[in-house]
Amino acid sequence: MTPYQLLERLFPINRSITGQGVEESLEIIKTLLPALRILKIPSGTQCFDWVVPEEWYARNAFLEDDSGERILDFKENNLHLVGYSTPIDTILPIEELQEHLYSLEELPDAIPYVTSYYKKRWGFCLSDRQRKALKPGNYHAVIDSSFKKGSLTYGELIIPGDKEQEVLLSTYICHPSLANDNLSGPVVLTFLAEWLSSLPSRKYTYRIVYTPETIGAISYLHKNLEQLKKRVIAGFIFTCLGDERTWSYLPSRNGNTLSDRVAKYVLNKFVPAYTTYSFLDRGSDERQYCSPGVDLPIASIMRSKYGTYPEYHTSLDNLGFVTDEGLNQSLELYKNVIGIIEKNATYKTTCLCEPQLGKRGLYPTISTKKTMGTTKDLMNLIAYADGSRDLLSIAEHIQVDFDICVENAERLREATLFNMCEVVNKI
Amino acid sequence: MTPYQLLERLFPINRSITGQGVEESLEIIKTLLPALRILKIPSGTQCFDWVVPEEWYARNAFLEDDSGERILDFKENNLHLVGYSTPIDTILPIEELQEHLYSLEELPDAIPYVTSYYKKRWGFCLSDRQRKALKPGNYHAVIDSSFKKGSLTYGELIIPGDKEQEVLLSTYICHPSLANDNLSGPVVLTFLAEWLSSLPSRKYTYRIVYTPETIGAISYLHKNLEQLKKRVIAGFIFTCLGDERTWSYLPSRNGNTLSDRVAKYVLNKFVPAYTTYSFLDRGSDERQYCSPGVDLPIASIMRSKYGTYPEYHTSLDNLGFVTDEGLNQSLELYKNVIGIIEKNATYKTTCLCEPQLGKRGLYPTISTKKTMGTTKDLMNLIAYADGSRDLLSIAEHIQVDFDICVENAERLREATLFNMCEVVNKI
Amino acid sequence: MTPYQLLERLFPINRSITGQGVEESLEIIKTLLPALRILKIPSGTQCFDWVVPEEWYARNAFLEDDSGERILDFKENNLHLVGYSTPIDTILPIEELQEHLYSLEELPDAIPYVTSYYKKRWGFCLSDRQRKALKPGNYHAVIDSSFKKGSLTYGELIIPGDKEQEVLLSTYICHPSLANDNLSGPVVLTFLAEWLSSLPSRKYTYRIVYTPETIGAISYLHKNLEQLKKRVIAGFIFTCLGDERTWSYLPSRNGNTLSDRVAKYVLNKFVPAYTTYSFLDRGSDERQYCSPGVDLPIASIMRSKYGTYPEYHTSLDNLGFVTDEGLNQSLELYKNVIGIIEKNATYKTTCLCEPQLGKRGLYPTISTKKTMGTTKDLMNLIAYADGSRDLLSIAEHIQVDFDICVENAERLREATLFNMCEVVNKI
Repeated sequence: MTPYQLLERLFPINRSITGQGVEESLEIIKTLLPALRILKIPSGTQCFDWVVPEEWYARNAFLEDDSGERILDFKENNLHLVGYSTPIDTILPIEELQEHLYSLEELPDAIPYVTSYYKKRWGFCLSDRQRKALKPGNYHAVIDSSFKKGSLTYGELIIPGDKEQEVLLSTYICHPSLANDNLSGPVVLTFLAEWLSSLPSRKYTYRIVYTPETIGAISYLHKNLEQLKKRVIAGFIFTCLGDERTWSYLPSRNGNTLSDRVAKYVLNKFVPAYTTYSFLDRGSDERQYCSPGVDLPIASIMRSKYGTYPEYHTSLDNLGFVTDEGLNQSLELYKNVIGIIEKNATYKTTCLCEPQLGKRGLYPTISTKKTMGTTKDLMNLIAYADGSRDLLSIAEHIQVDFDICVENAERLREATLFNMCEVVNKI
Repeated sequence: MTPYQLLERLFPINRSITGQGVEESLEIIKTLLPALRILKIPSGTQCFDWVVPEEWYARNAFLEDDSGERILDFKENNLHLVGYSTPIDTILPIEELQEHLYSLEELPDAIPYVTSYYKKRWGFCLSDRQRKALKPGNYHAVIDSSFKKGSLTYGELIIPGDKEQEVLLSTYICHPSLANDNLSGPVVLTFLAEWLSSLPSRKYTYRIVYTPETIGAISYLHKNLEQLKKRVIAGFIFTCLGDERTWSYLPSRNGNTLSDRVAKYVLNKFVPAYTTYSFLDRGSDERQYCSPGVDLPIASIMRSKYGTYPEYHTSLDNLGFVTDEGLNQSLELYKNVIGIIEKNATYKTTCLCEPQLGKRGLYPTISTKKTMGTTKDLMNLIAYADGSRDLLSIAEHIQVDFDICVENAERLREATLFNMCEVVNKI
Repeated sequence: MTPYQLLERLFPINRSITGQGVEESLEIIKTLLPALRILKIPSGTQCFDWVVPEEWYARNAFLEDDSGERILDFKENNLHLVGYSTPIDTILPIEELQEHLYSLEELPDAIPYVTSYYKKRWGFCLSDRQRKALKPGNYHAVIDSSFKKGSLTYGELIIPGDKEQEVLLSTYICHPSLANDNLSGPVVLTFLAEWLSSLPSRKYTYRIVYTPETIGAISYLHKNLEQLKKRVIAGFIFTCLGDERTWSYLPSRNGNTLSDRVAKYVLNKFVPAYTTYSFLDRGSDERQYCSPGVDLPIASIMRSKYGTYPEYHTSLDNLGFVTDEGLNQSLELYKNVIGIIEKNATYKTTCLCEPQLGKRGLYPTISTKKTMGTTKDLMNLIAYADGSRDLLSIAEHIQVDFDICVENAERLREATLFNMCEVVNKI
């Protein structure tokens, strides 16, 4: 299966913050990640300032005019129904109906995405063109939905590594038929997790999380905060990874965590024309992960960032907006991010002064004008390996590609000239 | 009484660092600030490296040519007499007289302001035009002045607030008939103090000080240093606040105290085209208040800064140079400064993760493309309310008007989502 | 003797990292610095990661063609022989000979400088023009060299000062007939040491070191590390000080040590158009002195920096490349560097508030518009003399010449208004 095919398969499902759509989606993902655990938190659970809501089920919803013509049907596009709509079966004049309709004047052909999770109301979304064509008269509004005490469902996959320290990769799984924001997130994360699982070994443990946005991240933090604060050294929110228009970087609140440094390094190296946003432009679960007192090192690399492209949160953010190429590029870029996190390390030289590299075959044995500088990268790496800077920081300082620094560090470690230090400070 | 009327009333008085001019001026100010205390420090008191000088009284002073024509008279303009002149009654040829005359070639119509506090001498100031018109011959110089052991007089007004922490507002009261530098300072401070006293309550205690420049500030510090160092969280020197030409900012020695941050915020907001000086350009009592070991957080907001305008320290810095409008603008700006200091506070969120604002009516209950961002200012305030930054700092970081941050913080405090923190660090 | 004459005298000697050339050169220098101690470290001594090599002696070396014509002779130019060549006396065809020849295509008339200290090999260096004129056939290669257990020789001169704290001035003495890199270094350092010795007194102790590059610095550090780390407050590598083309600055690894600050101040003042290099461009014994764990505050001021001029490490870096003027300018500049280090100090005012300078004759006794600002430099010095900044730092902050700050500080010290503080932090 390609990323795009997975996205196609997940696309029609009516997801929300609770209910069968999330579970159905996670079951499909589990076919690719058999170790994925599908977990539940009961409705009514207090999580910090929030309470896990009741489950919402939507079986049917449509709108008919007084001639019995069906104006819109939830079965055709689940965006037609306002998320968490209460049940209704009523006939009402168009004037009253208008208060329950949502459309976008500036995008006359787009059905907007609207939800009302925490206040009971009902409504339909439709294109502005269709709305303006509605004739006066009565309409029959039917929503066959229900609420029940149940649970919030999320997925968690722990891919163990040599160290207890973790990289947190989190995405949200609560949007219905919307492709870039947000199905591209779970899709790319799924393929990245599959790749991570397939590696013979990993230095770090990887914590892959699929939750509904906001309430899911909050309840996940409520359950796991102590462990996350102790273990997470870096992490990312996976979202908006499917189109090919641009690349975007959203920093963590701290702005200079390992996640930030790696994200900037990879973007600068591979797609230098990316857009840097401010943490003030945030809009996803970094709002929770980076909140005061939580303070996890979570950043985001995205393609077209939520809120910045016209199709965002409308029916135009569809299977035509994202591409297999776009998804695969994002996957590749995140593999590079993981690669750097895995290979990054902090070293300290084992001897004072420069080591004698010549006797170890690491330095030219003859000194001519031409040999000068050939080992500059190696010598500069040694000069800064004082245990206070990691390889990524040294690579940027000495202006040498990170991978070359890794290779050089490995040669020096093998020559017993470098000792690896425990990274003390995760940010 | 308007600020300009107070300035007019104080203008003709012959003030110096001691003597009846200061006391007379303070008595006039006391009619507006009945709680003002007029205090004295005896001549001869050692204050750090200085000794409070004897009181100087000048009753009469004039210069006549040998035809008996009066060339200049202290009663017409007290700038004619060099401050702290010793008594003299002598006839001397013009050649000898010249050594006792002061004028400004570059401002031929201006009488300069000259003093000699700590070295006994006598002299007259006059316009260069007048000086050049002096004919050869003998002149009769008369100065009826005297010195006596007495005291240095200063004014102090403590306007109590809810907290012991203080804002120090200090001005100097030693210049004779000079309007911008410096009568505008005491005048604006008097009206500000009147307004402060009229407020139903204040968070901070306000310490209003009128002293002679340099020796007054030094002796005031000598008497109150321990208390000032313990209590003062912000403060300003009031001077050069009367003209309408420009706005100026002189930082504290530290450069980033609360005083500096508030001054820059208010200037940027209301009069962004102001001039920023360096602490190296200082010239008033911040020289004492910010000196090493004293280190109070004292900055200045001014109109045309002392030393930078041609009329400075001459008879041209007169009632025509300052305006009621200029004085009132300065007063209003300083009210804004006080307003920010009073409203500034440091908060910490009471819950981990974002709070659920919707259930408190602080967040839209429906999520559409249009509702996104409407609560951005509120959410950004919450995101930085970690107890380490005050509202002013957060306002600048999230690029939201300070007053909106204050309102938002208040709503969050009322909703029990924000706790106020004690400000630990005054700078 | 002028610096250039000393350089001329040292030029023909065949120096290497060991052997009689170094000792012979040091003996000549000792005629100018009688207190110079010539010291030895035995071959085979382990110094950190290195072992002091055997001594190398080269008595004779030449190359003849099969007609017996001498192609090159070590006695004509000691660059013809690869440093540390093993002995050989063999006839070999030109094809085999080529593997033992070194020349520079881009500089067809230059004999390159080549060494092979730690791998046994033999070889000749010659101009590319000469090499290309070699005819086919056999050649007679003769190198009469030998190795023996002996020692590494270095020179050390301690010029005592009032304080135990030291300034380390180090140069290398291992290059054969090469003028700018590096004979200019020992030559300028010798005349500077002579001047330092001639001073009636010095505040700091001066440690003058002449060692072979790399192995010499490493073995010197191995022997003296504890003392150096405890005592050295500043220091410089002396090299490339003989030409007149340009000025260069190479920072220490830290980049902001006293050495760096003084170097930049002196260069900015006297030769502002100098080139600033990065520590990444280093190439001499700062590689050892600044290595992690050693961390001495060592920078370099140079003329044309090693590696940057075409003549570098070839026979063109000869007596025509350097000049007496160039050497003397470097000497003068370094005298200025020493002058600043000697005169630099950290002061703290002895009174709170500004002192009363008038009663001490340090301030005008009359205050007119013209007297304002005349003591600005003095007052600004006082305002920052809080014991946390040295004079050099204050001079730069208040934008006043360092020498004026020194004079003013001295006047204030004499007036008992300034106390000198011990410098706690050497960087």
